[in-house]
Amino acid sequence: MVVREKILDVIVSCFKRHGAKGLDTPAFELKDMLTEKYGEDSRLIYDLKDQGGELLSLRYDLTVPFARYMAMNKLKKMKRYHVGKVWRRESPTVVQGRYREFCQCDFDIAGHFDPMIPDAECLKIICEILSGLQLGDFLIKESRDCHGSERKSIDKALGLLPLSLQVSDRRILDGMFAVCGVPESKFRATCSSIDKLDKISWKDVRHEMVAQKGLAPEVADRIGDYVQCHGGVSLVEQLFQDPRLSQSKQALEGLRDLKLLYEYLTLFGIAEKISFDLSLARGLDYYTGVIYEAVLLQNPAEAEEEPLNVGSVAAGGRYDELVGMFNPKGHKVPCVGLSIGVERIFSIVEQRMKTFGEKIRTTETQVFVATPQKNFLQERLKLIAELWDAGIKAELLYKNNPKLLTQLHYCENMGIPLVVIIGEEELKEGVLKLRSVASREEVAIKRENLVAEIQKRLFES
Amino acid sequence: MVVREKILDVIVSCFKRHGAKGLDTPAFELKDMLTEKYGEDSRLIYDLKDQGGELLSLRYDLTVPFARYMAMNKLKKMKRYHVGKVWRRESPTVVQGRYREFCQCDFDIAGHFDPMIPDAECLKIICEILSGLQLGDFLIKESRDCHGSERKSIDKALGLLPLSLQVSDRRILDGMFAVCGVPESKFRATCSSIDKLDKISWKDVRHEMVAQKGLAPEVADRIGDYVQCHGGVSLVEQLFQDPRLSQSKQALEGLRDLKLLYEYLTLFGIAEKISFDLSLARGLDYYTGVIYEAVLLQNPAEAEEEPLNVGSVAAGGRYDELVGMFNPKGHKVPCVGLSIGVERIFSIVEQRMKTFGEKIRTTETQVFVATPQKNFLQERLKLIAELWDAGIKAELLYKNNPKLLTQLHYCENMGIPLVVIIGEEELKEGVLKLRSVASREEVAIKRENLVAEIQKRLFES
Repeated sequence: MVVREKILDVIVSCFKRHGAKGLDTPAFELKDMLTEKYGEDSRLIYDLKDQGGELLSLRYDLTVPFARYMAMNKLKKMKRYHVGKVWRRESPTVVQGRYREFCQCDFDIAGHFDPMIPDAECLKIICEILSGLQLGDFLIKESRDCHGSERKSIDKALGLLPLSLQVSDRRILDGMFAVCGVPESKFRATCSSIDKLDKISWKDVRHEMVAQKGLAPEVADRIGDYVQCHGGVSLVEQLFQDPRLSQSKQALEGLRDLKLLYEYLTLFGIAEKISFDLSLARGLDYYTGVIYEAVLLQNPAEAEEEPLNVGSVAAGGRYDELVGMFNPKGHKVPCVGLSIGVERIFSIVEQRMKTFGEKIRTTETQVFVATPQKNFLQERLKLIAELWDAGIKAELLYKNNPKLLTQLHYCENMGIPLVVIIGEEELKEGVLKLRSVASREEVAIKRENLVAEIQKRLFES
Repeated sequence: MVVREKILDVIVSCFKRHGAKGLDTPAFELKDMLTEKYGEDSRLIYDLKDQGGELLSLRYDLTVPFARYMAMNKLKKMKRYHVGKVWRRESPTVVQGRYREFCQCDFDIAGHFDPMIPDAECLKIICEILSGLQLGDFLIKESRDCHGSERKSIDKALGLLPLSLQVSDRRILDGMFAVCGVPESKFRATCSSIDKLDKISWKDVRHEMVAQKGLAPEVADRIGDYVQCHGGVSLVEQLFQDPRLSQSKQALEGLRDLKLLYEYLTLFGIAEKISFDLSLARGLDYYTGVIYEAVLLQNPAEAEEEPLNVGSVAAGGRYDELVGMFNPKGHKVPCVGLSIGVERIFSIVEQRMKTFGEKIRTTETQVFVATPQKNFLQERLKLIAELWDAGIKAELLYKNNPKLLTQLHYCENMGIPLVVIIGEEELKEGVLKLRSVASREEVAIKRENLVAEIQKRLFES
């Protein structure tokens, strides 16, 4: 929980730095609101039992509830963040609920604006958060052509994994499918095959497309030429000239927006951290334009050849139609946003801390109130109330007569830095002992100076 | 959300000050785990639809999940806090889910300890939080006998409501029922009548007990003598001498613990804020000892006679049997805890802010990046990235060519204190203008000094 809190703090501070206000929506949505928004994943939605009243479901993500909120309140623009739980019926055999409950941190910008400015800000936010969390080393795209991307040497001393931040556009993907000869009815099925390219090889994906999805082998090969392309803005330029792709009006729109996006990313100083990758195909139905995803890869030393996908830690994109779907008159509000997956980040940070033997305190207690005397509970209670009232984080043992050693052990186990010791002799003279747990040094302090001395020490440390 | 965040911050800081660690449990529990824990309120539990797997329900409070967690993990002691949502099927006609979803903040101490030390700390925490939130004026119990409690004059200038913090003990209540002649089978029904005493008069409660619950009139009258008693520690002393009540072993145990509790409350300096009130009868089944509740009352000027109950804002008590109910071998872990109701506190604070015309900013943006020039988007983007990278909270309008007046109006509406203005002339000389929105003063600043100057101004304000 302490690590979680720090992670959430980095994320929420960043959202606030970008001017977002907090918004909270209920955990339930009307069941109807969630249908036909998530494609194949709809089967993972939790429904509530019909106990009278409306049919409700638990939210599957924070994006659809946000769009529903915008539409219901007839809002035209908003920049908001939301930290909240979402629920998905994954691996229903697990007895405990914790793996079907996720914490997501979303940031979204809704409204009619000039193109790509909010989109670029979303990517800037992802970069700031991933850098702030020191999660991984961004793969810097230096090579400028298809198939060519060089990897910076990974700083293994820090335990950082290679981190890949990819961008693409739904319209380029759809245009590519069209010009390669995929029938429109098979766009989605093809898309879901492409989506596996970060987990299985092109050869296996090609096999799936031909054998299972029924694409002609030459269609699959044409797609293969594209989806293995990744690069930077130069790849955008190159695809503008591509004789086949440039026939698609949709693809050209996507390419034009990506070009503009890269201009803004350059101004933000993050263009070289973001690769344009045609194999990026986010599964959710509601994306309409730019899409992006940050994935952590396995360390090259551990992976056999290409680094494998460890997991997506941030993702998002543009969804210009979703708010309109909830508005009775179909009024649209264009939106772009991002979602940070706290659970995965948490397990990576935790793993790294274990590797490096870092110990984490579970509480923030600053001072422990102890005594070697019997029947000194009253003195301890009076003193600790003074500390609490001065805003100092303090604890004592809930025993009438605990042993001094037990009390000191508790401080060492819990990482409490300071101990106030109330002794009989000292009490008569209005003096207490302040002990540093680390150095075991003790100094006598007048009772009336105790709070000030503790505050001074805590401020200095 | 901003007000909510501040309220939560006061609460969580207090929990941490008392050495609690954060703990999070899933929103679902197995349906079986929640049955027979909440008495009549069980009908308010939300069940999930049976989509395969176990039968699940949404948690009704944070206490039962905590006890379940303690038992499942075979933990013997823990001091934890938990901020989370709970769900109750209240007023199912409301279309929106928000009123059936509540945020609760719980603090609990589990473990075998010497009596009343953790219980006193829970009451200290309630006092600290309610004082910290400046929610109301504690009713100070000065009078020492039954029926006698005097009210401090309420500070109306601050808009504070009278606040009553009451303590009692389940064992005293049960003992009182027994000695008054209530058959054990009617303890609970009688208890739920008593629980209404903060909303309806004794006359009406008496009528309900006799006419609906079937108590003999003389039994009801005996109960009436007790439940109209409220006072401080002197009432505890008085009841020790009560010829009828002192016949109950259970009641004597409760009185002994309350006496000890008041000793500790005196050491904590809060004894006079807490009244011993025999009409306090918390509804939930799981309490076994000390119980307490803080209620805000209507302002005496507005109420016709006695101030009415506006609402419970904090409550809790001792539940020594609950963990054992979840342990296969019945191993018990005594617990005591408290729960703060954020929703009610929020609406009170919001109401007060409206009354006093306080305006709340919804974002924390410190600086706005503006320009009077056309085609200066690139300059704005470059500059704002510098501010973000320096940790400064900054915004701009997502338009290629917004009007200067539109930009300045945005700052005034949103309460953003500073504006950086990029002009053409100034840009050539490497100079920017920094404008204070409140005073409308503008000063020219060298670009390389901008971040430092902004940080200086923000630090000073």
